Amino acid sequence: MPTLHVELFEGRTKEQKADLARELTQACCRVLGSKPEGVDVIFVDVRKENWASGGVLWSERSAN
Amino acid sequence: MPTLHVELFEGRTKEQKADLARELTQACCRVLGSKPEGVDVIFVDVRKENWASGGVLWSERSAN
Amino acid sequence: MPTLHVELFEGRTKEQKADLARELTQACCRVLGSKPEGVDVIFVDVRKENWASGGVLWSERSAN
Amino acid sequence: MPTLHVELFEGRTKEQKADLARELTQACCRVLGSKPEGVDVIFVDVRKENWASGGVLWSERSAN
Amino acid sequence: MPTLHVELFEGRTKEQKADLARELTQACCRVLGSKPEGVDVIFVDVRKENWASGGVLWSERSAN
Amino acid sequence: MPTLHVELFEGRTKEQKADLARELTQACCRVLGSKPEGVDVIFVDVRKENWASGGVLWSERSAN
Repeated sequence: MPTLHVELFEGRTKEQKADLARELTQACCRVLGSKPEGVDVIFVDVRKENWASGGVLWSERSAN
Repeated sequence: MPTLHVELFEGRTKEQKADLARELTQACCRVLGSKPEGVDVIFVDVRKENWASGGVLWSERSAN
Repeated sequence: MPTLHVELFEGRTKEQKADLARELTQACCRVLGSKPEGVDVIFVDVRKENWASGGVLWSERSAN
Repeated sequence: MPTLHVELFEGRTKEQKADLARELTQACCRVLGSKPEGVDVIFVDVRKENWASGGVLWSERSAN
Repeated sequence: MPTLHVELFEGRTKEQKADLARELTQACCRVLGSKPEGVDVIFVDVRKENWASGGVLWSERSAN
Repeated sequence: MPTLHVELFEGRTKEQKADLARELTQACCRVLGSKPEGVDVIFVDVRKENWASGGVLWSERSAN
């Protein structure tokens, strides 16, 4: 029954998300013995102005 | 003090969200004895290309 | 496909959680037209020393 | 290693988010002894029609 | 910078979590081009009495 | 109305959490103009065996 939330910078393509969802699901099945239909993956697109590391937004870092 | 996060596919109307928020809040009050003003409900709209079950994005399933 | 996360103070009984899960699920089905088997409810027990409102932990308020 | 998620009403400026990210990070460093580079802050913009308190969406309250 | 939250039933071994964290991280690197050190995986152990599907807690289903 | 979730390694004292909750709340009030009573802070204690960076659990790193 694992449910995965994946927070990542916005801008990824549908193909990347489709690939990643498949690979993450397969990893859960391999390691945990989950059935594929029991695995949910939810992507959360985060804008660079909404994510800070070390106290600095990534939108400001990119400006450097 | 319960706080509810409700992840659902985007596209629901304001009326549906208003109705659902009211009903979820009432259920918490009935079962937990919460005061209504202590209950928060936050909706998270998820696009079908951001949610996968069984390793397949719902945006791809809908295409079938 | 709604998935609900319910953060609540620890100490609720299994019966309360069972009742609440059922009622929350029914509300989603009624308002959104979801099928029951597509609704997941996850409870997150929060200790009073882990939740602050107005800058004060509830464990400190209870001490008053 | 603290990771903070900050849910707030949409409409805040980049300057407010930059300031808040810096201050939240500094507070973690001061109180927990974290290194700044280990602190992540993720903002989650919530529309008023997606947040209900007391069973009523904030988009409906604002209409009053 | 992806951050993954993995909600799963409690009872998994450290070895399973170590394996799964490594595989999930590798998948992110392969598909998204992330650097390993930028990937965080957080496991959230959920008791069966805290997870309901179809309105029924898994702790009650297991009793069948 | 901001709500903050703070994921941090378990083992922090109540005093640290009380201090941090107060400081985080004050920062929100200063920067966003929030009223203190509208700010919620929820701490999520994470065990080192449940958090991986770079694909390695922190419980394994500490063993080095």
